[in-house]
Amino acid sequence: MAKVVGFGDLLLRLSPPGYQRFLQATNFEINYSGAEANMLVFLAINGIPTEFVTRLPDNLISDCAMAQLRRFGVGLSHVAFGGDRIAAYYLEKGASQRPSRIVYDRKHTGIATASPEDFDWNSIFEGASHFVFTGITPPLGPNLPGICEEACREAKRRGITIVCDLNYRSLLWSLEDASRTMRQLMPYVDVLICGREDAAKLFGIETPASADGEDTPDPAAYAAAAEELTRQYAFQSVAFTLRETISASDTIWSGLLYTGGKAYVARGYRIHLVDRVGGGDSFTAGLIYGMLKCYDPQHTLDFATAASCLKQTIEQDFNLSFADEIELVVSGEATGRIRR
Amino acid sequence: MAKVVGFGDLLLRLSPPGYQRFLQATNFEINYSGAEANMLVFLAINGIPTEFVTRLPDNLISDCAMAQLRRFGVGLSHVAFGGDRIAAYYLEKGASQRPSRIVYDRKHTGIATASPEDFDWNSIFEGASHFVFTGITPPLGPNLPGICEEACREAKRRGITIVCDLNYRSLLWSLEDASRTMRQLMPYVDVLICGREDAAKLFGIETPASADGEDTPDPAAYAAAAEELTRQYAFQSVAFTLRETISASDTIWSGLLYTGGKAYVARGYRIHLVDRVGGGDSFTAGLIYGMLKCYDPQHTLDFATAASCLKQTIEQDFNLSFADEIELVVSGEATGRIRR
Amino acid sequence: MAKVVGFGDLLLRLSPPGYQRFLQATNFEINYSGAEANMLVFLAINGIPTEFVTRLPDNLISDCAMAQLRRFGVGLSHVAFGGDRIAAYYLEKGASQRPSRIVYDRKHTGIATASPEDFDWNSIFEGASHFVFTGITPPLGPNLPGICEEACREAKRRGITIVCDLNYRSLLWSLEDASRTMRQLMPYVDVLICGREDAAKLFGIETPASADGEDTPDPAAYAAAAEELTRQYAFQSVAFTLRETISASDTIWSGLLYTGGKAYVARGYRIHLVDRVGGGDSFTAGLIYGMLKCYDPQHTLDFATAASCLKQTIEQDFNLSFADEIELVVSGEATGRIRR
Amino acid sequence: MAKVVGFGDLLLRLSPPGYQRFLQATNFEINYSGAEANMLVFLAINGIPTEFVTRLPDNLISDCAMAQLRRFGVGLSHVAFGGDRIAAYYLEKGASQRPSRIVYDRKHTGIATASPEDFDWNSIFEGASHFVFTGITPPLGPNLPGICEEACREAKRRGITIVCDLNYRSLLWSLEDASRTMRQLMPYVDVLICGREDAAKLFGIETPASADGEDTPDPAAYAAAAEELTRQYAFQSVAFTLRETISASDTIWSGLLYTGGKAYVARGYRIHLVDRVGGGDSFTAGLIYGMLKCYDPQHTLDFATAASCLKQTIEQDFNLSFADEIELVVSGEATGRIRR
Amino acid sequence: MAKVVGFGDLLLRLSPPGYQRFLQATNFEINYSGAEANMLVFLAINGIPTEFVTRLPDNLISDCAMAQLRRFGVGLSHVAFGGDRIAAYYLEKGASQRPSRIVYDRKHTGIATASPEDFDWNSIFEGASHFVFTGITPPLGPNLPGICEEACREAKRRGITIVCDLNYRSLLWSLEDASRTMRQLMPYVDVLICGREDAAKLFGIETPASADGEDTPDPAAYAAAAEELTRQYAFQSVAFTLRETISASDTIWSGLLYTGGKAYVARGYRIHLVDRVGGGDSFTAGLIYGMLKCYDPQHTLDFATAASCLKQTIEQDFNLSFADEIELVVSGEATGRIRR
Amino acid sequence: MAKVVGFGDLLLRLSPPGYQRFLQATNFEINYSGAEANMLVFLAINGIPTEFVTRLPDNLISDCAMAQLRRFGVGLSHVAFGGDRIAAYYLEKGASQRPSRIVYDRKHTGIATASPEDFDWNSIFEGASHFVFTGITPPLGPNLPGICEEACREAKRRGITIVCDLNYRSLLWSLEDASRTMRQLMPYVDVLICGREDAAKLFGIETPASADGEDTPDPAAYAAAAEELTRQYAFQSVAFTLRETISASDTIWSGLLYTGGKAYVARGYRIHLVDRVGGGDSFTAGLIYGMLKCYDPQHTLDFATAASCLKQTIEQDFNLSFADEIELVVSGEATGRIRR
Repeated sequence: MAKVVGFGDLLLRLSPPGYQRFLQATNFEINYSGAEANMLVFLAINGIPTEFVTRLPDNLISDCAMAQLRRFGVGLSHVAFGGDRIAAYYLEKGASQRPSRIVYDRKHTGIATASPEDFDWNSIFEGASHFVFTGITPPLGPNLPGICEEACREAKRRGITIVCDLNYRSLLWSLEDASRTMRQLMPYVDVLICGREDAAKLFGIETPASADGEDTPDPAAYAAAAEELTRQYAFQSVAFTLRETISASDTIWSGLLYTGGKAYVARGYRIHLVDRVGGGDSFTAGLIYGMLKCYDPQHTLDFATAASCLKQTIEQDFNLSFADEIELVVSGEATGRIRR
Repeated sequence: MAKVVGFGDLLLRLSPPGYQRFLQATNFEINYSGAEANMLVFLAINGIPTEFVTRLPDNLISDCAMAQLRRFGVGLSHVAFGGDRIAAYYLEKGASQRPSRIVYDRKHTGIATASPEDFDWNSIFEGASHFVFTGITPPLGPNLPGICEEACREAKRRGITIVCDLNYRSLLWSLEDASRTMRQLMPYVDVLICGREDAAKLFGIETPASADGEDTPDPAAYAAAAEELTRQYAFQSVAFTLRETISASDTIWSGLLYTGGKAYVARGYRIHLVDRVGGGDSFTAGLIYGMLKCYDPQHTLDFATAASCLKQTIEQDFNLSFADEIELVVSGEATGRIRR
Repeated sequence: MAKVVGFGDLLLRLSPPGYQRFLQATNFEINYSGAEANMLVFLAINGIPTEFVTRLPDNLISDCAMAQLRRFGVGLSHVAFGGDRIAAYYLEKGASQRPSRIVYDRKHTGIATASPEDFDWNSIFEGASHFVFTGITPPLGPNLPGICEEACREAKRRGITIVCDLNYRSLLWSLEDASRTMRQLMPYVDVLICGREDAAKLFGIETPASADGEDTPDPAAYAAAAEELTRQYAFQSVAFTLRETISASDTIWSGLLYTGGKAYVARGYRIHLVDRVGGGDSFTAGLIYGMLKCYDPQHTLDFATAASCLKQTIEQDFNLSFADEIELVVSGEATGRIRR
Repeated sequence: MAKVVGFGDLLLRLSPPGYQRFLQATNFEINYSGAEANMLVFLAINGIPTEFVTRLPDNLISDCAMAQLRRFGVGLSHVAFGGDRIAAYYLEKGASQRPSRIVYDRKHTGIATASPEDFDWNSIFEGASHFVFTGITPPLGPNLPGICEEACREAKRRGITIVCDLNYRSLLWSLEDASRTMRQLMPYVDVLICGREDAAKLFGIETPASADGEDTPDPAAYAAAAEELTRQYAFQSVAFTLRETISASDTIWSGLLYTGGKAYVARGYRIHLVDRVGGGDSFTAGLIYGMLKCYDPQHTLDFATAASCLKQTIEQDFNLSFADEIELVVSGEATGRIRR
Repeated sequence: MAKVVGFGDLLLRLSPPGYQRFLQATNFEINYSGAEANMLVFLAINGIPTEFVTRLPDNLISDCAMAQLRRFGVGLSHVAFGGDRIAAYYLEKGASQRPSRIVYDRKHTGIATASPEDFDWNSIFEGASHFVFTGITPPLGPNLPGICEEACREAKRRGITIVCDLNYRSLLWSLEDASRTMRQLMPYVDVLICGREDAAKLFGIETPASADGEDTPDPAAYAAAAEELTRQYAFQSVAFTLRETISASDTIWSGLLYTGGKAYVARGYRIHLVDRVGGGDSFTAGLIYGMLKCYDPQHTLDFATAASCLKQTIEQDFNLSFADEIELVVSGEATGRIRR
Repeated sequence: MAKVVGFGDLLLRLSPPGYQRFLQATNFEINYSGAEANMLVFLAINGIPTEFVTRLPDNLISDCAMAQLRRFGVGLSHVAFGGDRIAAYYLEKGASQRPSRIVYDRKHTGIATASPEDFDWNSIFEGASHFVFTGITPPLGPNLPGICEEACREAKRRGITIVCDLNYRSLLWSLEDASRTMRQLMPYVDVLICGREDAAKLFGIETPASADGEDTPDPAAYAAAAEELTRQYAFQSVAFTLRETISASDTIWSGLLYTGGKAYVARGYRIHLVDRVGGGDSFTAGLIYGMLKCYDPQHTLDFATAASCLKQTIEQDFNLSFADEIELVVSGEATGRIRR
């Protein structure tokens, strides 16, 4: 039986209600999320056993964070405890020409001060089929690159499929550090998910942008980039999310999957956004779901793309959509008619 | 003087705030509605005497439901009391590619267990000019088809105009039952409102759909269907709503009225939706309003279409728009400039 | 050092939450605003010293109104106290084809009953570089035209730049009164901001509208109008806001600045509206900001137009956007990508 | 058949949520109330036909105010329309040692500018058995004392029982004006309700207070005062509310009724307050209800006292309690055990 | 290792916010609860393995109900699916003299139509140490008494401790049915929890009440009643909750435990209530916790009483308090000083 | 002219609404506070010039914190910028026997990493008459004791009155560190405010507690302690807050002031709590206000005690009460009767 293990941070998200600016807020809507946690929630509500690994301070707020994951069925048996504080981020939702604003407060946290002995990977990976982490995890603390590598090594040893979403965040580390560390981890990775810009920045593999700096849906260019990446790191599959930002209220969203020497392209969705945060995470989670269900590559990609389309119509960071709802979109029912 | 009598169910609607999914809600916004009740609220706030007939359990929640209708001036002198519970439905509002979800909880209710003696139609129709019911009412309980027919018979006897919105709901009864029952009631009906799909399903009268299953604004086809329906059941008028669903956030909306052997078509509105529930009800209510005001057919249809356009920009199920606001839209002021 | 003085009304705004109609509201969201106050808030949060002059009753609600302005740094040292009540207005936000509705309750207020001795302009203008008022202020009370003229005279004497947003409100006075009074004040004004319709109504200077009554972005026509206005009143600059209302949910917004015998045109923004109230005020405030920063005319206009575009993506009447955010839009980053 | 007519003001109440101070509020909870309207709402929800007479401006906010009364079944067939604005008051709820604060904004309203021809008392009183007004109505405008007297005269002519709650408000008029006007109206009044302080101030009839200025439950003193009042004005009955304020959170509440030459005293309730506004109005409404139901004097008083006790456990100004609930309290079930 | 199995209903609770009456509510706060579910949530958040057994319709609302229990760690592996609807109840919170009102809507539900084959008790009880049910479960449907007996029989066979909270609800069945059914189940029960009134009604065992019908803390009388019950049914332990209702806002709460032929009495708490619902359930859960931890009888009772005291200071039905917090109260720290 | 300078931390407070536990919250009410900031807000809204000195990271959340202080008129000209994050604390409000819970997240903040050169005390104290800090400030970071001493030295040099609220927080430092540091700062202090327990812990000066560990209002014991403290450190005045915690919902509150060799005692208030946080800060702020107004010692103490009584009836940390409201309570009007 399959089980997916994720390793990363868990943050308290604080957002002004609706379209209020920070300056207008008298209360913050809260939820608890993180790139890998978001993926596991999606998998868990769709029936996949999961295990989320992180390190949290032992206080009442961490209890809330864990209760939120547990609510959706995510396994939490290997959470380590310690550190001064839980990570947080403030999100102000944008609209039209006004961009969303994020203020991070993720230093000095439980995971930032983790050490290798906090995690017993041998026991964690018991019964696991997939391991997923993102490029956000290594820069969280001085020991994190090493811990990630240790996890990868143990996963590799057990024949577990390793999935990595590249996700470069310039606020967390320099391009040099990111490039060096991620290149070191790539040999362990089986499935890589990335965006055009990150591939260029970290691996020097360029794909053409549109005139206004947006992703251009030119399958050939992405296929070539995926091929080149595969050549360098022997990935089993490489996937790209393809985004065209119209405004903070509307976006066009698609994806490409390169596997078995072939590129597959998904249809594009023009999305009237409810909450774009977690869009990329839900794409990765959708890919893992498709792999676990042994969908063929086109269906896997279509599922992942439709899943991440639906995510962006859902408030907060989790993709609380169900496989049957996603399949409906995949099948072409994407007009949002009432389901009674 | 005119008075409009409606007969149907009254439900508690429970909706997560904004675009939350059910799983995210910690409170539900509530209102009380029902197809016929929605129509009467619109008529009442626009000065038309109304009477809503239903059966409700005698408890504090029914009191709330009635207070809500009374607030807008709907007459409630003939409500019957009894039964275990009030009907409810849960509505999760969709967005973009994510459809709205509805969970019904309308069995075992006051009206479901009604019997003919609960309603004294002779007294109810005192002073009435119109009687309206929808295809939702007959399947609510075993005695309901009979009660509807009795009401129609009495209305007919008094020369009251009978308006029926076909409104087939597959969750309430089978196509066979619906077709048989509604065909039996049609001879009483003067004005029929229906959608393309329902006409096909219940009466076997097909009109062409667009490639993606949406209504196609082909007036000729609808006019032919209306003509055929009129031929079969001797309707005074037949009206169609014409909808094209772009997404859960946007729709195109229009209507067609066939009367006096002639078809009238309304302009179409592209609507950025606030709440689409009750759109069809408001179209029917607009037609009744136009008939009561003796508008000519084109104006009647234009009024009904503009009314139902405005409804979909208003939260919850009632069409809380006023005739002067609707006439402004009819006159071409449909750009939503601020009115001071 | 620059300081901007504004003179006008301060109102309590009462709005149903979200897209509720008045009839649906059980609470009103509140804020305190006014055309000139809105401008000063924008300037104050962007580091410009400001002074807001008005007259308010001496009660707890006025305290709230002033605390709200003080919060953003607006100077309040010259507020006069007296009168029975604070002004209020009720705003119901429209959507799609449904227009916003405003009910004013601004009679019998503190400022409406002001007298010349309430304001010591000599002391108020100490250290000021700009004085701004709108066409809303003179009609607020019988003494207001005189007070406005006195303020203008004193400002002129001191060489202060006088900025006037024409802003004709038919609910406050007749066209005749408005035309006569505003024509009398124009000789003092250095910078005039107006809309196409107001220029036509008050000064008889016509510019062509589009077929559906919207502003047409024909720079030549506006330039000609500006030139004619400048000829008549010796303005230093004349600016027009150019608006095309698509619906209550979407608008197209641009502007034109005529100065030094030359017309400058801004790019147009298609805005998915959050709250359109205060759009014009933020354009004027943006112009003042550009003038204070000695931007060249094109940049001044671009800044003002982008500022007022962002305003309309922000809840309530204040333009709580910052110069660096506006410059980003001016620079072409108008797609609302997340800023971390 | 009985019908109760009330004449007075209708106000928009604006309150910060919970125990927020005005300075903390970002939204106001709203409801629409007024002393006489409050009474009629209680009577209407308990099955008594009612008619509320007032004058309101013809705008969307008045529509909301009327919808709120209509919701509870209050008759509104004789409302006059006109004037600039609807009255409003701001209420900040106190707690413990912190008193509630009220800011009135009730000048220049529809009723303040009413004239005698706005009300056709002959038609209004058709079928009425009781007329109720309070000492708040006469000072609302220059014509109001005359209009009140005209109403009383017509009521008297028809043998309608006239009920008056003395309710002196020092913000509305001077003691001299109040005393002169109310003394002039007293000869028409059949049932007078008043507090200790008002009786002393307006009619010079003193009753002893407790050491800290609170009402002292000395029945003899109140009975003597009532007797003296009855001697002077030939009242049918006189009732006193007896209050002992412990804090803004707790109060002791009782009442005394003098009728037929005898004084009746109610038990006292120590109330943990939810909202004390409307406590006096609900006492008067309870007395009217008891009179209409022909309860004996003790039961009438007990009902009125229990009704006003329950009111103070209910949010906002209306006494939304039902006769069966009140009788339960009267019968001694005042411990608030859950009713399933 | 211990595991506690509970069997009963799961309801959607719908409550107006704060102290609003039903008639005032525009939204309902929701949570999902049930007597046995409440107990298991408390045990689960305090580290005890649990399993909740019920039958639910297979729809989105049931998903929400289960997610809520899962969030707190309650096991849900044996939930049966089927039936038309989920149970609901409406709760209006009382205050001071105004009692809370409950409207039940728990007929025709999933559990009401359960049949024996829905539950495989042999598998359910795998690894269980305790089984708990209340007197609410048997009357829920025609097959429920039989199913309860079957569960008891299987539990007995396995030596599982059976705990029953008598909890008679007159809205669900007659006294005769209740008495007959519960007497039939008692021989299986090891630990009985009941109130004074229920013991009298169902088993004819009277204990003296105080003058006003409240529980009187006369340990001797309760001890005698417990002794008599133990004599009749061979209970291992019998516990009473002792309540004195001061008002809907304040209560006095205590308990008595009779075990090993000896009676233990807890200290009484005067509680300023936040939400009294679930008080009894939390007492039973506290007893089970004490038994599992092998506390001595006095400590077990003290823990249960303090736990149920804290519950009543917590919103909604679950006792979200932790063992360390309860022990603090047991130790005498019951003054609510801030814990930093 | 007087000006009060305060130096300390500014925190984001995150609280579940109402009486929700952390585990129940889906949003947090926010405000920005800190012991010294709280004091200055009170002084500022009562007309006293103030200056708040702290160090904050340069981000959008700090902007919100400062806007909140500016709103009430607090001077912010000397705020230093730097550091990773703003401090935060989570507050769960208790009720009855359930204590409030606080989780601090105040490490690694702007002020924690401040260095002496961030503050130019010479310029900061320009025009100041009083300097206030609390025992919370020194332990915030390694340089803070030194910075506090430097500020005291400069204040002393200028003859500024130094006020210190002892406020020992065991989560921030050990008793040893606190004792050593605070003893070192005491020689600078003119006015010391402390609680019984802190005086004992830090200075070894014991006063008798009541049997249950609460403050006992034994003036003689406190006077002796104050005398001893004055003897040791040559204070101008020493003040004690006297608290008796009844529960998380109710408290008894009083104070004692020792000055000029004489002890003054305030009346005690039994407070039904709205929010107890900031009670001590408001006492200190009240003392400063009384000193600035040159009240005699008894009036100064009465004012401070009444001020801090009112604070605890107000939501959140600021004492938003006005001098006239406080004087009313001082004068004996402490029953919370409505003020119109």
